[in-house]
Amino acid sequence: MLTIALPKGGMLKDSIRLLQAVGLDFSLFLDSANRQLQITDASGQATGLLVRAQDVPVYVEYGQAQLGMVGYDVLREKKPAVAHLADLGFGGCRLSVAVKTTSPYRSALDLPAHSRVASKYVNCARDYFQSLDLPVEIVPLYGSVELGPITGMSEAIVDLVSTGKTLKENNLMELEVLYHSTARLIAHPLSYRVNPYGLKDLIDRVRTQAEAVTV
Amino acid sequence: MLTIALPKGGMLKDSIRLLQAVGLDFSLFLDSANRQLQITDASGQATGLLVRAQDVPVYVEYGQAQLGMVGYDVLREKKPAVAHLADLGFGGCRLSVAVKTTSPYRSALDLPAHSRVASKYVNCARDYFQSLDLPVEIVPLYGSVELGPITGMSEAIVDLVSTGKTLKENNLMELEVLYHSTARLIAHPLSYRVNPYGLKDLIDRVRTQAEAVTV
Repeated sequence: MLTIALPKGGMLKDSIRLLQAVGLDFSLFLDSANRQLQITDASGQATGLLVRAQDVPVYVEYGQAQLGMVGYDVLREKKPAVAHLADLGFGGCRLSVAVKTTSPYRSALDLPAHSRVASKYVNCARDYFQSLDLPVEIVPLYGSVELGPITGMSEAIVDLVSTGKTLKENNLMELEVLYHSTARLIAHPLSYRVNPYGLKDLIDRVRTQAEAVTV
Repeated sequence: MLTIALPKGGMLKDSIRLLQAVGLDFSLFLDSANRQLQITDASGQATGLLVRAQDVPVYVEYGQAQLGMVGYDVLREKKPAVAHLADLGFGGCRLSVAVKTTSPYRSALDLPAHSRVASKYVNCARDYFQSLDLPVEIVPLYGSVELGPITGMSEAIVDLVSTGKTLKENNLMELEVLYHSTARLIAHPLSYRVNPYGLKDLIDRVRTQAEAVTV
């Protein structure tokens, strides 16, 4: 049977809706009383695995799931060895550089050399500032990155922005967009070639459905 | 004013109770309606920062907080450059190796060479298996590590165990304990020597209070 890794959090609802539209029902994962992390769809066609967004590519890379749905941001940060198959359209956000609204900086290049930049996306942030040839110190954080500039620990942050509400509430403003991100369909590369259990047929149905919704 | 970094999650309640006993009230952090991550105690003696457990040593290492409370597990995994001052007694748990109850393994050394071991504690897990001279492949996960053996991705896990309920529910059993962990009081090394704003006095009060509760 096929296994599909689904991300906990903001993209779960849209992931499940998309799979429902192609005949796979994992809506039990949306039930707050549910504690199961592995369920089989009622039609018996596939198993769903509910994992952290960052863990989706791990399960797919190791072949424990043939398919996965995950944000482009996770793929850019972790660079997992998975086949990147389709843009699913939902989960739109952007990775941005932000600073305090009271700061004098109006672009990333205004930041002084050796500034501190707090981020959960240490690889993306490092690559970006290297591409600018601006040496900065990346401070790795796991949550509430907006506290970096508020406490004075860092001059700037590199963080995901969707509505911009968190930035506004914390008196921060975006200077630059590193890239835009949406949910992506990924597959285990070998499975994609070997095509077990009608994998390619399912991929085609998901792709068609995602395109129909996006257009 | 002194700043104290407090960990979100399971140890927050006991951290706040301990600080209340020495005259610092950060109980607003326990109010689910509160969205502030930085509050000043009513007595005006100190500021509290509410951050992820893994971020507590970061704020202390960079000197944005002079003091912090965090689990020994985080200190062992991240090895931050902070002064380790006292065992606070609460938040007891252990980092353990666990396998499926149906597995034939009865000790870590029974695991076949090149087994996969899933963990959030990749450094602790690597150090442990190196100390056994047993080559294993560590699979880094961010959450629900128990899914590793369930899905067949890994033979074993290295994860925090407190009551053992999660292991039991997932038909896993502990093979070995790497170490026991409790909440610790940490300080910025330079602040600890310079002693601003009566830092040492506060540390002494917290220590005395923690010992009184533990005994």
